[in-house]
Amino acid sequence: MEENKECCHKKKERAEKEYRDLINRLSRIEGQVRGIKRMVEEDVYCTDILIQVSAVNAALNSFNKVLLANHIRSCVAEDIREGKEETIDELVGVLQKLMK
Amino acid sequence: MEENKECCHKKKERAEKEYRDLINRLSRIEGQVRGIKRMVEEDVYCTDILIQVSAVNAALNSFNKVLLANHIRSCVAEDIREGKEETIDELVGVLQKLMK
Amino acid sequence: MEENKECCHKKKERAEKEYRDLINRLSRIEGQVRGIKRMVEEDVYCTDILIQVSAVNAALNSFNKVLLANHIRSCVAEDIREGKEETIDELVGVLQKLMK
Amino acid sequence: MEENKECCHKKKERAEKEYRDLINRLSRIEGQVRGIKRMVEEDVYCTDILIQVSAVNAALNSFNKVLLANHIRSCVAEDIREGKEETIDELVGVLQKLMK
Repeated sequence: MEENKECCHKKKERAEKEYRDLINRLSRIEGQVRGIKRMVEEDVYCTDILIQVSAVNAALNSFNKVLLANHIRSCVAEDIREGKEETIDELVGVLQKLMK
Repeated sequence: MEENKECCHKKKERAEKEYRDLINRLSRIEGQVRGIKRMVEEDVYCTDILIQVSAVNAALNSFNKVLLANHIRSCVAEDIREGKEETIDELVGVLQKLMK
Repeated sequence: MEENKECCHKKKERAEKEYRDLINRLSRIEGQVRGIKRMVEEDVYCTDILIQVSAVNAALNSFNKVLLANHIRSCVAEDIREGKEETIDELVGVLQKLMK
Repeated sequence: MEENKECCHKKKERAEKEYRDLINRLSRIEGQVRGIKRMVEEDVYCTDILIQVSAVNAALNSFNKVLLANHIRSCVAEDIREGKEETIDELVGVLQKLMK
C-alpha cells in the first residue's frame, strides 16, 4: 500500500481491478438515485419509492463490505505486520461507526 | 390523494412543499455519491470513504422516514377512512422490507 | 381492541393466538441470550459469539415485525376508523425510532 | 490468547475484567427480555413494547461492538503478527454477516 501524505489525509493507491469495481458500483448507485428522483418527479406512489431507496441502501452496504474487506486484507494486515498499531484503533473506530 | 392508474403503478401527487423537500434531499444525496466517487478517483484512504458512505446511508434513511411519515398521514389514513383495506397490507408489506 | 387506561399506559388485550406466539418468541430469545452467556463462561471464541448475538438481533427484529403488523392491522386501523387521529402520530413516532 | 482446540471450536480465555463486563451486559439483556415478556403478559400497548425491544437490540449491538473491538485488538492483531493469515478471512467473514 503506497502511503504518501500529500495532504493531511492518508492515501491508498488501489489495484486497477479494485478501483474499477468500486467506481462501477458508485456509478450504478448514482444512477439509482437519479432514478428515484425521476420517480418523485413523475408522482410515483410512495411505497414504490420506499422500496427503491432501500435497494440503494443495500447497494451502498454492499460497497462498504467490499471496501472494508479490501482494507482489512491490505492496509490493516500490512500495518500490523509492520508494527503500526494505530491502524488497529482506526479499524475499531470505523467499525463502531458502521455498526450503528 | 389524486390516484389515477395510467400505468399499473398507483400515482401520488404531492404538495409542492413535500415535493421540493424530497427532490432537494435526493439532489444532495446524488452529490454525496459523486463526492465519494471523486474520493476513490483521488486514492483517498479507505476509512475516510467508509465513513462517507455511511453518511449517505443515513441521508437515505432520513429521506425514507420523511416519505413514510407523509405516506401514513395521507395515503394510509385516507384509504382506511374510505374503507380501502388493501393499503394496510401494503403498509405492513413495505415495513417488513424496510425493517431488515 | 379493549382500551382501558388503568395506569398512564394504554393497554392492548391480544387474541390468545397472538399472545402465545409473542410469548413463545420471547422465551426462545431469552434462552438464546442465556446460551450466549454460557458461551462466554466456556471461553468460546469471539467470532462464534458475535454470530450468535446477531442471530438474537434477527429474532428480536422478527418479533418486532410481527408485533408492528398486528398493531397496524388492529389498533391503528380501528383508531383511524373511529377518528382517533393521535394513533397516526404515535405510529409515525415509533417508526422513526425503529428505523434508525 | 490461549488457543486450545478441545473441541472443533477455537477457545479464547479472556481477562477477568472483559469477562465480567460481557457477563454483566448479557445478564442485563436477559433481564430486559424477561421484562418485555411481562409487558406482553400485562397487555401493555404495542408501541411501548416495540420501543423496549429496540432498546434490547441496541444493547446487543453495543455488546457486539465491545466484543469485536477486543477481538481485533487481541486475537486478530496477535495472529497477524504470528503470520496466521486465516484470522483475516475469519474477521472479514464475520463482518460480512454483521453488516447486513
